[in-house]
Amino acid sequence: METAQRQERLTERRIVRYQEGEGQRCDDVLTMEEPLEIRIEGEAIAVIMRTPRDDFDLVAGFLYTEGLIERPNEIGAVSYCATAEPPNLENVIEVRLAEGVTFDLERFKRNFYASSSCGVCGKASIEAIQCLAPVMDADFEVELDVLYGLGDTLRQAQAVFEQTGSLHAAGLFDAQGNLLGLREDVGRHNAVDKLVGKHVRRNEPLPQNALLMVSGRTSFEIVQKAWMAGIALVAAVSAPSSLAVDLAQQANMTLVGFLRGRGCNVYCGEERIATR
Amino acid sequence: METAQRQERLTERRIVRYQEGEGQRCDDVLTMEEPLEIRIEGEAIAVIMRTPRDDFDLVAGFLYTEGLIERPNEIGAVSYCATAEPPNLENVIEVRLAEGVTFDLERFKRNFYASSSCGVCGKASIEAIQCLAPVMDADFEVELDVLYGLGDTLRQAQAVFEQTGSLHAAGLFDAQGNLLGLREDVGRHNAVDKLVGKHVRRNEPLPQNALLMVSGRTSFEIVQKAWMAGIALVAAVSAPSSLAVDLAQQANMTLVGFLRGRGCNVYCGEERIATR
Repeated sequence: METAQRQERLTERRIVRYQEGEGQRCDDVLTMEEPLEIRIEGEAIAVIMRTPRDDFDLVAGFLYTEGLIERPNEIGAVSYCATAEPPNLENVIEVRLAEGVTFDLERFKRNFYASSSCGVCGKASIEAIQCLAPVMDADFEVELDVLYGLGDTLRQAQAVFEQTGSLHAAGLFDAQGNLLGLREDVGRHNAVDKLVGKHVRRNEPLPQNALLMVSGRTSFEIVQKAWMAGIALVAAVSAPSSLAVDLAQQANMTLVGFLRGRGCNVYCGEERIATR
Repeated sequence: METAQRQERLTERRIVRYQEGEGQRCDDVLTMEEPLEIRIEGEAIAVIMRTPRDDFDLVAGFLYTEGLIERPNEIGAVSYCATAEPPNLENVIEVRLAEGVTFDLERFKRNFYASSSCGVCGKASIEAIQCLAPVMDADFEVELDVLYGLGDTLRQAQAVFEQTGSLHAAGLFDAQGNLLGLREDVGRHNAVDKLVGKHVRRNEPLPQNALLMVSGRTSFEIVQKAWMAGIALVAAVSAPSSLAVDLAQQANMTLVGFLRGRGCNVYCGEERIATR
């Protein structure tokens, strides 16, 4: 059973692992990220990005901790939507309320905040973004040594990090590794939006062949934002999720993870990495 | 100017810093977390939690990377809402579209997913939660040594972390430091919901005097969920945001951060920490 549970949470992908100047193809284990739509009495109330497993617990906990139900016994039945189709067989959950319990959706609408755009499934989301953003055709190359230097440059520029330890950073670089912009925020995705928005407000395109480096992990949301902004290379200190890799592949983007010291993992788009 | 910018992002609070068995009162610098409501032509389309500063860039970037506008020049004017009142003078932004540009809100509604509940301002949010959850009156004590052990217990139980480096963990413990439950997810808040939801589904209260420990940072959202679930002590490996501390204080919760090795910061509720 433990093995089955692990399979739900993990997935393998073929990557290129670089150490110093050497790249080697190997398999790597990624954390699953999938959307989950929650319906109450047939009405969709939320789509959250999550790692599959314990989905019924997740939904019950979400309804309770967000104040959508007041008492645990207000939940009647929880089940996967019977009419959902692959790949979403387990990505839509139906909640029936206990007898006599009513749910006033309008009452809660103003208490919810909308976050990143996302369709009901990863596939639908990817298709939705493809309608809006063209596949990346940028054919520039980045030297491995330039990649290895991004993290240090970002950290040196991130004076605040040292003070609170609680700010995410996103940096925009040119293909030679020069820092073009740095933003910090409690939300990684906000830091990316701040970088991109500076150019949007000036009604100017982002610098050509720009690279994005983020602290921490790469989620679907970060890759989506980079794609929309036309950034063809995204690098991160930690791991990407499965859906982040899927989306980056569709975008023909270069996705780099575990960029630490003189090593990194390249999840797709390795043709943009120059090893000498 | 740099100083002014820093003040917008950082705020000081009085904390108790423990090292080994000794606690010392001192000032600590926290990252600001505040909600931002975005309105397009007067219609509220999103509330996002963010660190103040570069707000107009954030909004422009958000609209663009989420596909709400197709071209940068569709944005006309961006301004802080003139009728907003303290403490929200800079927490509501009005976007006017360029002449001739129309915005079909309905078109995008299904592409947004709702996330954590949140009012327009931290204060409103805190009040909304107070209506739903009582202030914590749990008067149990936790030994410092028990606190210091939580991280190791969590990490040892978190086998998957070693494999992907990309899963957040949340653990539920009793006041003696025994692990009652562990959940992992790409989203810290989901891991908490999974822990809580297990009990909600069984229509049973959470174990009395339970402690919650999360990997990484503590946001408003984590404290909110803990409060709703009746958990009176929340500990984290990294820092809390300003709004997380404000909410924990209102809840009469004990909030612990930077729990590493044999040291930690206690942001409020230090009366539940027993030093011998």
